[in-house]
Amino acid sequence: MRVEQLWSNARLATLRGDLPGLGVMEDGLIAATGESIVYAGPRAEAPAFDAGTVHDCAGRWITPGLIDCHTHLVYAGNRAREFELRLAGASYEAIARAGGGIVSTMTATRAASREQLIAEALPRLDAMLVEGLTTVEIKSGYGLSPADEIKMLEAARALGEARRVGIAATFLGAHALPPEFAGDPDGYVDLVCNEMIPAVAGLADAVDAFCEGIGFNTDQVRRVFEAAAAHGLPVKLHAEQLSNLHGAALAAAFGALSADHLEHLDEAGIDAMARAGTVAVLLPGAFYFTREARLPPIDALRTAGVPIAVATDCNPGTSPLTSPLLAMNMAATLFRLTVDECIAGMTREAARALGRLDTIGTLEPGKRCDLAIWDIKEPAELVYRMGFNPLHARIFGGRT
Amino acid sequence: MRVEQLWSNARLATLRGDLPGLGVMEDGLIAATGESIVYAGPRAEAPAFDAGTVHDCAGRWITPGLIDCHTHLVYAGNRAREFELRLAGASYEAIARAGGGIVSTMTATRAASREQLIAEALPRLDAMLVEGLTTVEIKSGYGLSPADEIKMLEAARALGEARRVGIAATFLGAHALPPEFAGDPDGYVDLVCNEMIPAVAGLADAVDAFCEGIGFNTDQVRRVFEAAAAHGLPVKLHAEQLSNLHGAALAAAFGALSADHLEHLDEAGIDAMARAGTVAVLLPGAFYFTREARLPPIDALRTAGVPIAVATDCNPGTSPLTSPLLAMNMAATLFRLTVDECIAGMTREAARALGRLDTIGTLEPGKRCDLAIWDIKEPAELVYRMGFNPLHARIFGGRT
Ligand SMILES: [Zn+2]
Ligand SMILES: [Zn+2]
Repeated sequence: MRVEQLWSNARLATLRGDLPGLGVMEDGLIAATGESIVYAGPRAEAPAFDAGTVHDCAGRWITPGLIDCHTHLVYAGNRAREFELRLAGASYEAIARAGGGIVSTMTATRAASREQLIAEALPRLDAMLVEGLTTVEIKSGYGLSPADEIKMLEAARALGEARRVGIAATFLGAHALPPEFAGDPDGYVDLVCNEMIPAVAGLADAVDAFCEGIGFNTDQVRRVFEAAAAHGLPVKLHAEQLSNLHGAALAAAFGALSADHLEHLDEAGIDAMARAGTVAVLLPGAFYFTREARLPPIDALRTAGVPIAVATDCNPGTSPLTSPLLAMNMAATLFRLTVDECIAGMTREAARALGRLDTIGTLEPGKRCDLAIWDIKEPAELVYRMGFNPLHARIFGGRT
Repeated sequence: MRVEQLWSNARLATLRGDLPGLGVMEDGLIAATGESIVYAGPRAEAPAFDAGTVHDCAGRWITPGLIDCHTHLVYAGNRAREFELRLAGASYEAIARAGGGIVSTMTATRAASREQLIAEALPRLDAMLVEGLTTVEIKSGYGLSPADEIKMLEAARALGEARRVGIAATFLGAHALPPEFAGDPDGYVDLVCNEMIPAVAGLADAVDAFCEGIGFNTDQVRRVFEAAAAHGLPVKLHAEQLSNLHGAALAAAFGALSADHLEHLDEAGIDAMARAGTVAVLLPGAFYFTREARLPPIDALRTAGVPIAVATDCNPGTSPLTSPLLAMNMAATLFRLTVDECIAGMTREAARALGRLDTIGTLEPGKRCDLAIWDIKEPAELVYRMGFNPLHARIFGGRT
């Protein structure tokens, strides 16, 4: 069988859903032509390949390229000064008076050109790529005006031109209330539903919202979701991070791809997610950085069979985290996810959370040839270490 | 004034002890000849330099090169599998029966040649160097026999030949009881005092011990310290990590360079450390990885004026952390150290903890020209981010 490329002498963590654990195949091969995998499996069962290029992996491990399914990677400025003030004892009020908080990121993002947003996001993206990332979700939500939200989504898409990486762009207009709508959240939600969502329908892959006392209530989120549905856009939700507004159940009722955070999720929400097939996206970086005490209900999610993904939540306010590997370590250390759950959570389950499991997330014929090749002796090393990057090579669509 | 090199157009965090905070000098210069700084200060106050080479820093920040004053960087094998088993619910007993725990690292380290130890440690060291590290302390303590402890210390020293980095080698024979001395800790301490310490006196810079219920008691540590003193070696101690055996006070009584961990330190220990000038070395990576609940008494240390350093504690069992930047973030996030305390803790105070404040740890004339040059707008960015490395250049003894 003629193929363009062959990765030989590899140990595969295929993440195939029909196999237990990581779907491991010792002494494996991956064959690819163009951007697609044509074979991923044991050497012993492989057809005879006539390959244009053979890459000897020397026993290294190959996983699907990592997928970060929840980030706010595009923004301007940073909040290091706010972090410093808080450590020095400043109150949230004092920081808000000093111009800190999400409004400071909104102000900087509005003031930045699309090109500036791209330039500021690229080093963060590059930090993720060197750890084997091949697809990243990026949300808007710091523009909070039609033009600035579009600018953010265009910047997110442009990152996929600047680098060899898959981009999932998510419209998060209902992230926070911009100052010009102070006291009128419903007026802002009107703008989101009637102007922004129609305008971003060709630009965004999904619609998200922040359902929280300091965000938007379930009635407002419902209107956002209805507008998304009217424009054929799938939805997802920041839910139950700081309190239980029953946002996850609302999201599940709209067949949401995912509900994210979930520290305060209850049984009814878990049942609704399980029935809808909504993925639970866990964000241990935000849990760590904000010193949250309440854990998401991991065991109940497992028992109910809710798929679990893990993401960085990379954002300037609550998770300035640009390491997918560290997100996995935090998911294990802080949330007690198993090694297999952590790795599945940044491959197969992250693909599911993006609605892209048909094309990425596992090593299977027909999927994109997005690979991470690792200098490790066993997959647990990807989760166990802190601040160490054992990536040997990153392959995106069959190419480095 | 003729100098070999000049770093111009820089913002300096000098860490000078006679200045508040980070000893910041905007619009600063560093001049060096050979391995030494000849000027570090404001451009406006600088003499006219005639420099062989001028490096325009374009407004970047320069700090002293980072110093990691507590690591177990040299060892063989890893404990990823043990980490995985524990996440899957295995008990400590089951892991010990499966050959896990410190004994597994001892066994692998004994079986490894010096060259293998060097080869396994180098990727870990390199991960630290790319974050601006210029000096690292490395302990023995996985050999636990005269020949294997010497092999570890020689490997540690050899890392300083393989890379441009300063090495402080610490003898930690009293780290754990080797199986051949089971039931006879005093017999092993005899070996440490009578054979090992005399043998390593020319090879080690200091002597350390693990004072804990699962380590050695204060009587045994006192004997180790007396042997160290007899051979002119300064001491330090793993103290009060899991319980309060009053090890820090004992260490202070011997004028210890540092007492490390300290989660269970009491007021008497703090007073003794303050009087002796013993540095408190905080290890937030181990606190995080072992999910310790009890915080070290930070406020009491501050009040008493005990110097505070921060280190990675890089080791395979309780802190597989190879990122000095992440150690600073954890010290801030988990221990609420301020940004200034975190940065001082991995520069000036780490130098103090190694007894090397006369030669490294601050930007001052006469000290080694060990610099970290950063692509940041403010020092807080070094602490605030997680998994992002803004290093522009690392200078060791005046050279990259
Ligand atoms: Zn988010
Ligand atoms: Zn230690």
